[in-house]
Amino acid sequence: MTAPDPRLSINQATIKYAPLAEALHLTAGAGITSIGLWRDSVEAASLPEAARLLAGSGLRFSSLCRGGFFTVPEGPARRVAMDDNRRAIEETAQLAAAGAPGSAAVLVMVAGGIPQGSRDLVGARSMVEDALAELAPEAQAAGVRLALEPLHPMYASDRAVISTLGQALDLAAPFAPAVVGVVVDTFHVWWDPELTKQIARAGQEDRIASYQVCDWQTPLPADVLLARHYPGDGVIDFAAITADVQEAGYRGDIEVEIFNQEIWDTPPGTAIARTIEGFGSAVSPHLLQAGARR
Amino acid sequence: MTAPDPRLSINQATIKYAPLAEALHLTAGAGITSIGLWRDSVEAASLPEAARLLAGSGLRFSSLCRGGFFTVPEGPARRVAMDDNRRAIEETAQLAAAGAPGSAAVLVMVAGGIPQGSRDLVGARSMVEDALAELAPEAQAAGVRLALEPLHPMYASDRAVISTLGQALDLAAPFAPAVVGVVVDTFHVWWDPELTKQIARAGQEDRIASYQVCDWQTPLPADVLLARHYPGDGVIDFAAITADVQEAGYRGDIEVEIFNQEIWDTPPGTAIARTIEGFGSAVSPHLLQAGARR
Repeated sequence: MTAPDPRLSINQATIKYAPLAEALHLTAGAGITSIGLWRDSVEAASLPEAARLLAGSGLRFSSLCRGGFFTVPEGPARRVAMDDNRRAIEETAQLAAAGAPGSAAVLVMVAGGIPQGSRDLVGARSMVEDALAELAPEAQAAGVRLALEPLHPMYASDRAVISTLGQALDLAAPFAPAVVGVVVDTFHVWWDPELTKQIARAGQEDRIASYQVCDWQTPLPADVLLARHYPGDGVIDFAAITADVQEAGYRGDIEVEIFNQEIWDTPPGTAIARTIEGFGSAVSPHLLQAGARR
Repeated sequence: MTAPDPRLSINQATIKYAPLAEALHLTAGAGITSIGLWRDSVEAASLPEAARLLAGSGLRFSSLCRGGFFTVPEGPARRVAMDDNRRAIEETAQLAAAGAPGSAAVLVMVAGGIPQGSRDLVGARSMVEDALAELAPEAQAAGVRLALEPLHPMYASDRAVISTLGQALDLAAPFAPAVVGVVVDTFHVWWDPELTKQIARAGQEDRIASYQVCDWQTPLPADVLLARHYPGDGVIDFAAITADVQEAGYRGDIEVEIFNQEIWDTPPGTAIARTIEGFGSAVSPHLLQAGARR
């Protein structure tokens, strides 16, 4: 078996059905040194217990998924969403403190779609601006970085009105880079004709908070949320995108986050082994050695 | 029944199963004054017969779908693709000549996806540039306008490596606007944060060759090619986009092109009636009166 790349982080979604303790155990047992967690799993264990288990695993913590879903008009429902984001900020801070050195206090933010019954995409996007203005001071106080994730445009109506890296950078611009960054997830952005340019811009503006890798294949499955594949199993040019992200200065952990029913239906140990292999062949060859600079 | 908008054109794909003669008959019989045709249907009838039928119908011809699919490496397969495009140019010229006054010699171009076995999206995009350079002089000689259609990014790998209006305009830039234009199809571009800006640019550069309208709904169907809906049945803001397209100076026919198995399974006369209604309520109110200018 390939030795895991030292920058590889398993995003817990890839082994969705493993409870937190098992996910940590399998990840560390496979020689992987970092993990990205999901809130439902953390909350199922309770935050203090999750932090304890994470600390005991010896793993770095690379991100918490996810905050956001704040494209809600002002009113009680929006207040509920904002309070939920406050809890997510607190969870991120505690988990980052519990993780091994090199952990990242990164909260991945998925914006949310167009409000039910509305056609006002522009208005929904402005709700994201307002929410960031409200949450950024609290994230800053907690030492947490909000990482805006552009999602593939096929999710623009029902999941994320942030659709391109350029748009995410525009939304991040009013805030300090240490407080609001962006996620570069290959699955969501690989198609973008502006990608190389916007990754370079993200580097210049010091905004890359997370680099996530998984692959794109067609035909898409019936549920397009579950369309992700192991790196190397599809059409994404990981050599080019990884080089762009390195060139932009990102040196953090790289998460593999896969939503795919077939992969979820395999034993989690198998999914981890395949992730190590896919990452090792599709991504690792394009990473700079530790400490190297172009 | 609503009287059809004078700018409404039925794209034949909306009534996919109607043979050409029936499609023309039903369209004209419903009081619609324009139609966009598909090559398979034209070729099934033969080009001279299709031109004769079109002339007899009294309808304007708004476009031929479609040329393109030239993301093929140089070699015999690429030559076949280029020759097919030459035939499409000739068909467009003859059909535009046979249509009623106000017909548009517009050939819609769908670029094609990444070649089988390749991950070189940038290379595939450069094949589009090369193909346009080869075909543009022939289109110009025939009086035909090649209309580059950006397709939704969910089709980037297997159908069209042109994914945004901005990218289509960049590809069109080396050529005269009368020879290479772009299609604005709401289904493909509605999500784009740059849309208003790029439609305005398309107007300034005199590139809008076609405006097509249909709607976006989620969840997407199992086959994402068939995800289109009547205008007004989804989340697209036709008021805003139609205003942008008008502001950009486009005054031509507006096609409704819907791929949707349920709609195809209704009688074509029903689909035409629903198209007239949807267009009348979702699009017509946002059109300037003939001759009006802001």
